[in-house]
Amino acid sequence: MNTAKNESQCITAPVKKKAVLMDGVYLNGPTLHIKAAEVFVQEALPLILEEAVRKAIDVREKVCEWQPPERLKEILDLELKEEGEDHSKILERCRDAMRYSVKTGHPRFFNQLYAGMDPYSLVGRFITEAINPSLYTYEVAPVFVLTEEAVLKKMMEFLGWDNEGDGIFSPGGSVSNMYAVNVARYNHMPGIKEQGLCGTPRLVLFTSQECHYSVAKAAAFLGIGTNNVYVVSSDERGKMIPAELEKQVLRAKEVGALPFMVNATSGTTVLGAFDPLEDIADICQKYSLWLHVDACWGGAALLSQKHRHLLKGIHRANSVAWNPHKMLMAGVQCCAFMVRDKTGLLQRCHSAQASYLFQKDKFYDISYDTGDKSVQCSRKPDAFKFWLMWKAVGTRGLEERVDRALALARYLAEEIKKREGFQLLMEPEYANVCFWYIPPSLRKMPECPEFWEKIHKVAPVIKERMMKKGSMMVGYQPHGNRANFFRQIVISPQVSREDMDFVLEEIETLGKDL
Amino acid sequence: MNTAKNESQCITAPVKKKAVLMDGVYLNGPTLHIKAAEVFVQEALPLILEEAVRKAIDVREKVCEWQPPERLKEILDLELKEEGEDHSKILERCRDAMRYSVKTGHPRFFNQLYAGMDPYSLVGRFITEAINPSLYTYEVAPVFVLTEEAVLKKMMEFLGWDNEGDGIFSPGGSVSNMYAVNVARYNHMPGIKEQGLCGTPRLVLFTSQECHYSVAKAAAFLGIGTNNVYVVSSDERGKMIPAELEKQVLRAKEVGALPFMVNATSGTTVLGAFDPLEDIADICQKYSLWLHVDACWGGAALLSQKHRHLLKGIHRANSVAWNPHKMLMAGVQCCAFMVRDKTGLLQRCHSAQASYLFQKDKFYDISYDTGDKSVQCSRKPDAFKFWLMWKAVGTRGLEERVDRALALARYLAEEIKKREGFQLLMEPEYANVCFWYIPPSLRKMPECPEFWEKIHKVAPVIKERMMKKGSMMVGYQPHGNRANFFRQIVISPQVSREDMDFVLEEIETLGKDL
Repeated sequence: MNTAKNESQCITAPVKKKAVLMDGVYLNGPTLHIKAAEVFVQEALPLILEEAVRKAIDVREKVCEWQPPERLKEILDLELKEEGEDHSKILERCRDAMRYSVKTGHPRFFNQLYAGMDPYSLVGRFITEAINPSLYTYEVAPVFVLTEEAVLKKMMEFLGWDNEGDGIFSPGGSVSNMYAVNVARYNHMPGIKEQGLCGTPRLVLFTSQECHYSVAKAAAFLGIGTNNVYVVSSDERGKMIPAELEKQVLRAKEVGALPFMVNATSGTTVLGAFDPLEDIADICQKYSLWLHVDACWGGAALLSQKHRHLLKGIHRANSVAWNPHKMLMAGVQCCAFMVRDKTGLLQRCHSAQASYLFQKDKFYDISYDTGDKSVQCSRKPDAFKFWLMWKAVGTRGLEERVDRALALARYLAEEIKKREGFQLLMEPEYANVCFWYIPPSLRKMPECPEFWEKIHKVAPVIKERMMKKGSMMVGYQPHGNRANFFRQIVISPQVSREDMDFVLEEIETLGKDL
Repeated sequence: MNTAKNESQCITAPVKKKAVLMDGVYLNGPTLHIKAAEVFVQEALPLILEEAVRKAIDVREKVCEWQPPERLKEILDLELKEEGEDHSKILERCRDAMRYSVKTGHPRFFNQLYAGMDPYSLVGRFITEAINPSLYTYEVAPVFVLTEEAVLKKMMEFLGWDNEGDGIFSPGGSVSNMYAVNVARYNHMPGIKEQGLCGTPRLVLFTSQECHYSVAKAAAFLGIGTNNVYVVSSDERGKMIPAELEKQVLRAKEVGALPFMVNATSGTTVLGAFDPLEDIADICQKYSLWLHVDACWGGAALLSQKHRHLLKGIHRANSVAWNPHKMLMAGVQCCAFMVRDKTGLLQRCHSAQASYLFQKDKFYDISYDTGDKSVQCSRKPDAFKFWLMWKAVGTRGLEERVDRALALARYLAEEIKKREGFQLLMEPEYANVCFWYIPPSLRKMPECPEFWEKIHKVAPVIKERMMKKGSMMVGYQPHGNRANFFRQIVISPQVSREDMDFVLEEIETLGKDL
């Protein structure tokens, strides 16, 4: 063994006396130099605080330090080699990794449906990474099993499911939506778990054209098939049209297919639209369909007395997906999947009862061994960071965040209406503010197809320029027949009114020559 | 807004001049007190280092501080309330959470297929939690996209797939195995993605009786059905019997079912057995079946020149699941799913081409936008911590870990053979050492059914006692017709020979009165 690098490496220990030789390996005391490991971690921590926290949330710093892939590969020196490197080199690599990463906690990162840095959640995540648990059983993760249960219970209260319901955290809203399809299907025809879909009638589910793409992914993955996702039209604001849903249900029945589930969306990805849950629930009741609500993005509004009307009727859902890592800032990932059933449906649907893990002869109440409700085996304790944050800021603090984010979105929309060269797609009702920027050269042009063709090319160029400058990040996309537009996502609480003003000024600065 | 608690809370800022009132919310500068947040994180870090690193890996400390669920609920004070709590209270909660958690990094935690603390991986995880990325696109996660690519490339070299292959990290080996079933199915009948399984022939897959339970979960989840998982007998060591596999394939064909895939296991969960891959690959070739190798646990052996023969033939696999969070200590979770195909099969199988995320008119090479290869949308950068650790210890360092773990397992097996009252199930060929403890009262009894009934009750009692004492954690389970036995899992490098001796002595101490 190499003992020369002890001081700058944590592993490899000198061979002591009384070591036993076994299969060519000297077995003696631990090969981890605990002191060296501690020194390394202690040297790394201030670096992380500086580069990934302090600078990353400082509005005066860049959101990103753009490098094209080929150049960044050289900088990072990616290749994995036979010999290791010493601590000073590894710390340099840590610094580079942080330097060239996009700062999602930065006040001018508006690119996804999450942003910002919450110090309580961050500390919660540091704790769970250091403890390194996996959430199969109470025995190996007692604190994390109980905090998950407490968070789910509280979230279900906000759904209006008092003393009802069951749930599990999953690795992403897409997975939660898959869980919904699977549980709905199992509820409808439990035999499918054993017999599969071969020989069953054609199962059909319904969702709006504005839903998240994970619904189609779920249908493909679960063997239902994307053709059996019947797409329901939305209105001009992006909300599912209940009458169209009923038409689609009848169409499916007419051709002999078996409708089993509706996916409604509370907070669509692009427009931030909320489907009318009460009307949809009526139709589900009429035709005995499972109602799943994808509230991954919009669920946060439930915490606001002012805005929770957006999800009116959610108490009637059979299942709900809600991601506190989005507007509530619990850190990626934090994704709850909840079912109203309390007869153990979730567990029956997903369980495999592995005897090496879920032993029946344990000495404690094994109803706390919740891992078999999941299709995962190893599972991260994603609820804990949210629990800790909720303890720190209280329900009132979470409510303030939501109210502030939505007030900022409203402010931005008002500013857009006032400014020449900016055009709203529609009045926002949530935190998605969608708008076009029209450069001076196009402002006099009539809104003909050629105009829209030119507008379509504006956002990608401005995006490229903002990335290279590192001044901010805002997403853009085409949508249906609409030319590329910006979608600004507002997440509280680090963002200020001044940042909203900045966005519009910066777009103007970057795009006025187009 | 409440400004009284500023010094002990990070959120809520005083209303400044020039604030704008919008929807009842004063919009001014950020409400995050950056200084207060920094102070909080800085106060928490030494606590984490002390409780979740230093004490957690110190052999003189307890592995766990056991409390039954009802008592732990009281201690943790789980309820989420209207008002938040100040920093000193939250730090107390952090301390409690760590105190009552099981220390999976402790040298005497042998309970699961992972253990130990690697300081490089830990720093990598702190970095990614602070940066809080999500791995959809190069644009938002450049460093993490590239490090994932580099790690996959290197892992595929160890599979013997030089210049071939594609892959993605997934949230768990169970999910990787699901990916395998889905890709194998898509490769066999691509139309299923759109049309679903309704109307297709009955698809059947094959796996051994010793495989991980996720194969059955995958079949249920993907709509194939657990009845269509044909279970192949294993030999007395837990290895799949190739002739039995061929029999099962023929049986499926005889009844008109459509065999499409074999799951072979390299490192079974309980016994640590390796299926004979060359023979299985021959059968797969003969019958045109997709060969998936679940090497989640055993893949680590590929890094050892001494032990890689266990996976001989893995280069012939069509897909492989391999979890570096297990023996290689990259931290939960770190799970690679790899396919040998390099024609984009993985992407075609899983993609949904969301236009708001995977825009085609970006200014860089969008082949780096790898997110659509996954069925997740948000995805954690699990490869980075492994990349950083590999850089630090080198391939040689990883090899030493594997060799040491397996030498320790061998040492333990030899000690068991020497000691009265201990009985090996079989000679280990990997890091699973399975054995019974026979208390003095039973040592003279013949091995009749009554003897085994009594033995069956020994391990649960010893487990309860070790948990309550906090001295160590070792798993037990029944298996087939075998009565409850201990399964000791050895992970290098923090574990020493002395810990192996301790385990046997402690079991004797805890169980000698039984």
